[in-house]
Amino acid sequence: MRIDRFLERTSDDGKKTMVVSAADDQEVMTCIGEVLKRGLCNCILVGNKDNIFSIAHEIGMDISDCEIVHAADEVESAGKSVSLVREGKANVLMKGGILTKTLMHAILDKEKGIRGGGILNSVCAIDCPKLDRIVYLSDPGVVTYPTFQQKVDIINNTVSFVRKLGVDIPKVAVVCAVEIINPNMPSTLEAAALALMGQRGQLKNCIVDGPLGLDNALFPEAVKHKKVSSPVDVCGKADIVIMPNAECGNGIMKAVRFMTDSATAGVLLGAKVPVVMTSRADSAENKLRSVGLALAASE
Amino acid sequence: MRIDRFLERTSDDGKKTMVVSAADDQEVMTCIGEVLKRGLCNCILVGNKDNIFSIAHEIGMDISDCEIVHAADEVESAGKSVSLVREGKANVLMKGGILTKTLMHAILDKEKGIRGGGILNSVCAIDCPKLDRIVYLSDPGVVTYPTFQQKVDIINNTVSFVRKLGVDIPKVAVVCAVEIINPNMPSTLEAAALALMGQRGQLKNCIVDGPLGLDNALFPEAVKHKKVSSPVDVCGKADIVIMPNAECGNGIMKAVRFMTDSATAGVLLGAKVPVVMTSRADSAENKLRSVGLALAASE
Repeated sequence: MRIDRFLERTSDDGKKTMVVSAADDQEVMTCIGEVLKRGLCNCILVGNKDNIFSIAHEIGMDISDCEIVHAADEVESAGKSVSLVREGKANVLMKGGILTKTLMHAILDKEKGIRGGGILNSVCAIDCPKLDRIVYLSDPGVVTYPTFQQKVDIINNTVSFVRKLGVDIPKVAVVCAVEIINPNMPSTLEAAALALMGQRGQLKNCIVDGPLGLDNALFPEAVKHKKVSSPVDVCGKADIVIMPNAECGNGIMKAVRFMTDSATAGVLLGAKVPVVMTSRADSAENKLRSVGLALAASE
Repeated sequence: MRIDRFLERTSDDGKKTMVVSAADDQEVMTCIGEVLKRGLCNCILVGNKDNIFSIAHEIGMDISDCEIVHAADEVESAGKSVSLVREGKANVLMKGGILTKTLMHAILDKEKGIRGGGILNSVCAIDCPKLDRIVYLSDPGVVTYPTFQQKVDIINNTVSFVRKLGVDIPKVAVVCAVEIINPNMPSTLEAAALALMGQRGQLKNCIVDGPLGLDNALFPEAVKHKKVSSPVDVCGKADIVIMPNAECGNGIMKAVRFMTDSATAGVLLGAKVPVVMTSRADSAENKLRSVGLALAASE
């Protein structure tokens, strides 16, 4: 898959560091093992020291080059991991065998956390054989019902992320069920306002259009059929699709994961560093791809 | 595809009649030509008589067995087609080269229309190679933000439709972004209430569960991963997925159509007969499948 180019070694690799919160989990360690084998970055493993060593031994993994930071429990593990990021010792944070809310709590802590200026949102990268490019879907689940300002923040976070991955001026489609402005569908009004913000230069480094159906956002043949007109060149070519709500984003992401032959990767945006938030349901390949993407977008 | 079994001739075929509103459209006539060639039903073609004959001549189609009803314009065509259904002369109504809203207006007319008792909603049948059964998604676009009562009506319409297609007691999943009840996500509360209505016997001829993510509604391997517990046997096996809103339904439907190798078909439910509402963006095969499904579910 094209997305695997983020797993190819570059000259920057080995200079970056990923801190793993609650690394003492067999699936997580297996993923880290692959990261180390490929030499993608250095790793700091936070968690129960004895468990980390015994899992490493069990799966035949060499962690002699990793820094190990002991933590007695999940809360301590989250706190220590976030602190390492705050101190500038890591470029990427990875969620290990820990509840999402425990890690989020530490990230969002007003004094000791690593919040950025705006919102935290997740992005799902989709590499589908039926598309000629990787498409980035925001938000598939963190921001349930984004307000207008939150949609602006989500666009800014995602554009900034995608630019670091090599798309200079990403094309952003604000997705709704239809292409027309329908007063009974508030999402179409907000999409129109976001498109106009793009035209007025209020959304930087990207081209925005909306409302667009998913088909007219992504597929040129759908645009040809429906003859959608627009002064900007986004229809059928979007790099980023902004979702009206988490139900829509989550449903599309799950349809893509389970019903297509696409590769996917997920990263949490908006904190001081990209955060890898894989779940047990992700395949080993997709977990690794999420690490690759987060590293590629880190500073 | 498995869905094509609805295009195989049965002993009932040839006894049913489909009325086509505004048949004078080349794509629509091509579809009707295939319906006639397969002997799936009789057809009444409503529209400009001269145009119907000249299109038939042009595409080399034999319409000598069809009843032709002249209509001067789209509005007259919609009115006459709906009247034919009212008079019991047709088992299925098909939208031809006419605006959806013009036909809907005629269907919903309080005096001359063909409204049923409840709501009108569309259903999208999905035949995906990665699923061991056909899945029916409601509503992908007609009811934008269904109220709780409208969700009940959508379930009833869809269950009744799917039963006619041969699934005796369909398993219904009310889809949300998550499996837990989240007070900040009203769709999860409504899903829980619908699941309980099922358990109390208030939703007939089906088994209901929710809230469920799309993955845990459809795919047993996702259920195994996430260990969702339920007293009813719907998780990973749903025949019907009920959408929280049209954005979600529309987005998933379009992801399936454009990003997977699935066959799809769409029918409007809740009128006195099933209504075929294909769009120009549908492939010829999927248009025909929609006719097959509507005929199979008609009385």
